[in-house]
This record gives sequence, structure tokens and C-alpha cells, in this order.
Amino acid sequence: MIEVVILGFGNVGQHLYNAFMHSNQVKVIQVYNRTVSVFSSEMVSNYTTSLSNIKKADIYIIAIPDDAISDFSEKLSIRKQLVVHTSGSVGMNELSGNNRKGIFYALQTFSAATDVDFNEIPICIEAESEADVKTLVKLGEAISEKVVVINSQQRRKLHLAAVFVNNFVNHLYHISAEILDKNNLDFDLLKPLITETAKKVLVLSPSEAQTGPALRNDQKTIEKHLSLLTEMRAPDGINTNLAELYQLITKNIQNLSANPTKLS
Amino acid sequence: MIEVVILGFGNVGQHLYNAFMHSNQVKVIQVYNRTVSVFSSEMVSNYTTSLSNIKKADIYIIAIPDDAISDFSEKLSIRKQLVVHTSGSVGMNELSGNNRKGIFYALQTFSAATDVDFNEIPICIEAESEADVKTLVKLGEAISEKVVVINSQQRRKLHLAAVFVNNFVNHLYHISAEILDKNNLDFDLLKPLITETAKKVLVLSPSEAQTGPALRNDQKTIEKHLSLLTEMRAPDGINTNLAELYQLITKNIQNLSANPTKLS
Repeated sequence: MIEVVILGFGNVGQHLYNAFMHSNQVKVIQVYNRTVSVFSSEMVSNYTTSLSNIKKADIYIIAIPDDAISDFSEKLSIRKQLVVHTSGSVGMNELSGNNRKGIFYALQTFSAATDVDFNEIPICIEAESEADVKTLVKLGEAISEKVVVINSQQRRKLHLAAVFVNNFVNHLYHISAEILDKNNLDFDLLKPLITETAKKVLVLSPSEAQTGPALRNDQKTIEKHLSLLTEMRAPDGINTNLAELYQLITKNIQNLSANPTKLS
Repeated sequence: MIEVVILGFGNVGQHLYNAFMHSNQVKVIQVYNRTVSVFSSEMVSNYTTSLSNIKKADIYIIAIPDDAISDFSEKLSIRKQLVVHTSGSVGMNELSGNNRKGIFYALQTFSAATDVDFNEIPICIEAESEADVKTLVKLGEAISEKVVVINSQQRRKLHLAAVFVNNFVNHLYHISAEILDKNNLDFDLLKPLITETAKKVLVLSPSEAQTGPALRNDQKTIEKHLSLLTEMRAPDGINTNLAELYQLITKNIQNLSANPTKLS
């Protein structure tokens, strides 16, 4: 049985807590959060709001905002314990040297509203010693079938790539929703296409799945689209870069298709 | 029973053919294609490669590349029949005046490799007369539960929005795949996130679903990402605009979040 203390009970902390509760190899012996209000809706019995009350455990998981991780890890009174954080973009070395450092990064988007099945979620592990890597892999495998050991540099790149397929893709959904809204069309119309586009790259590479006016150099359609985007320009100058965004992505698709290995 | 002739047997033509074959309200009485080779793999019995052999039908569906539609419709020897095209970006008026004009636009991405369930696919209808609209709605409802009547202007906007959620989203998948590939990471790692991102906007609006460094103004992470993208720059100058793309989308997300109704 791996004993765990979760430090921070926001989205990530809560989803991890629920996942660990469903595993018989992990015991969450305590959850810390600065404020008590987050515990009301969850069935957490062993919680504390005081850092001086932290119990002894095998692994301490910091699940707080990125920019607070470093200071927070310094404030912990424990010593020489395995303390990990859950961030994609914060280096392992930003953790305090008072304890053994590690990473437990679950590559998924977490929101309070939606349940998440951890079984499919990649858990990215890093630690200073082989023994700690082993412990973290064991913890990861208790909730997921996909545990990988990667270094901080790789994790940073992975997080960057995740921003493209998650935050930036969602922004493109947002742009589309606005275009439809302005033309009295229901966003529901696009949902089958959104679903199919995401499903396609489960079986084809994105390069194989690419279609559209940019790829086939359909200049007539591209120009029509650019003039529609220019028409839609806001009169007060806010968000006038949709045509620019369209051109940039179009150019990029064309470059990539002409030089498939030259993206980076 | 609605009798249909399909003109052009590429991806769209083939998928429509298969969908109609599964409906007991539609009969495909003939399929035309310029070359015979496409018919070999499909069980098409009534096909022709000669435009002068076209049979009489209720609806003629042109399913050929956008830029060929106008000329092709002029070449048809039939007169005063209901002739529709299947393109999102070509106006209804680009069809020849020799026949009654209409649109039968299925909003989905079609590829030879993947089967498509038409039941969920929005079919966008347009025609010059109420009677023809009715006929086309009936044809649409024979294969889909989602038939909408929209005008050419709306369809153009819909097609533009579709380019963002399909072609452009796929390009972001492509960028991510390249970033991972260059760092010896498996694209499979991102698949659960891709799936979840697409699933999220089935229940939340894209605006509600937005997360990430741009939205929370996490300048430290944004700068880290920009420097990673700059490092990855190609030495020969091809595709050096990833940092530019990152900045543009980041700025856009921030503008949209500050002025939620000011996209257009």
C-alpha cells in the first residue's frame, strides 16, 4: 500500500484524490488545503488546513498553481521525503532541496464539471533516484495503464504540445462558435465535424488526415474566406487578427505539405 | 421513392451513394464519373462515364471539386431539372441556369479510409423554390436526423467555421505531433487529451471550456513556450512561424476573454 498526502485540493488534487480512492494499492492518508471550503462537497475525512499538521507518508503530491510550487515546497517542514509536483511546465529543480524531488504529471485537462477516467491518461514520471522513479511508477500504475518516465526537458515539450491540442484547439472551436453565432447558426452543427476530426487522428497521423483549401492550394476559396473574415472585423479594432491567423495557419499547412520534415 | 443520379464518384459521391443505398426512400438510379476505375471497388451496377447517357431522375447531385462545378453544370444536357451541388463554399448561383438550382451540403470530413455515419451529419439545404427545398429536405431526412435549410451566405460562413474546427485544428495536431517526434515522445501520449478536448465542447461552450496559460495570463509559462518554439526554429528558415502562431493565438484568447462579445 502506497501512502499519499495530497497538498492542494483544486481540480487536479480532487481528480487525483478520486482516482486514488478507487485503487486498492493507494491510501490517501491526508489532504491539505489552505482553505476549508473545498472539502465540503467531497467525502474527505482526513483533511487539514495547517501545514504543521502534515502526516507521515510515502509520497507528498503538490497540486497547486504553477507559480506557487517553488515557494510552497520550501515552506514544508518535512525533510528528506519524496515530494512531487503535478505541473507540465515547472522543472523538477524548482522544488525545494529539503526533500527528494519528483514529478507526477497527468496529461489531461481537468475541470470540476467533468469526470475523468484516469485509466487512459498518460502519467509522466520523473525523480532523482531510481528507487523514487520506481515508487512513482507504481503509484501511476495504480490508476493508469499508461505510465511513462520522461525528463523535465521532454515534459516541457509535451506540455507545449498539449497547449496546442488543448487550449489552442479550443480557441479555434471558440472562433467557429462566434462565426456561427454572428450568422444565426447553431454551434451544434459543427459538433459531428469536431468529433470526427479528433477521432481521425486516433487512426491516421495528422499529416495523413490533413485536408482543406490550404492543402490543395485552393486559392479561390482561401481568398473568399479571407474576405469574409475581413468583413467580420470589429469596428473598435478588438480581435482584428482572424484574417492574419487564417493566413498564418494556411501558409504553415502549405509549407509543411511541401517540406514534410521541416517544421522544426 | 426519390430517384437520384450522382454526378462524380470521389469521396463525397461514394459516401452519399452508400448512405442512399441504406435508405428505402431513395434510389440511386445512376452514377456518373469521368473515369471508370473508381467503380471497380464498389458494387455500383448502374454507372456511366458518358454525360450523354444520363438518365431521368428527381435530383441530380454534383459531387466534384469546387472549381469544376460551374463549368460542369453548364455541360449537362438535361434541362429544367433539379441539379444540386455538395460544396460548402460554392454559391448556388454558380450552377447553370439551364436547370433548377439547389444545394445538398453534408457538413463532415470524408475520407476513403473511414466510414461515416450520416445519421448525425448536418445536411444543409438550399433551393430556389419552396417545392425543391421540400424535395431536398426529404432526401436529407432519408439519411440524416439533422437537416437544416440555410442560404448561401450562411453556408459560406459555416464552411469557414468548419475550416477552423477541422483543417486548422488538424494542423495544430500536426504541429504537436512534430514537437513530440523531435523529442522522442509518442504522439499517442496526446490522444486522450485530444479526445477529451473535443468531448468537452459537446457539453460546455468553447468559451466555458477554455483553459491554459493564455487565459490565466501566465506570462512565465508563455515566455518559456516561446523560447522553446524559437529554439526549434528550422535552420533553413522554413516554417519559422510557430512562435508567431503561438503569440497570435495567445493574444486572441486574451482579447476574447477580456471582451467576450468582440470577436467580430
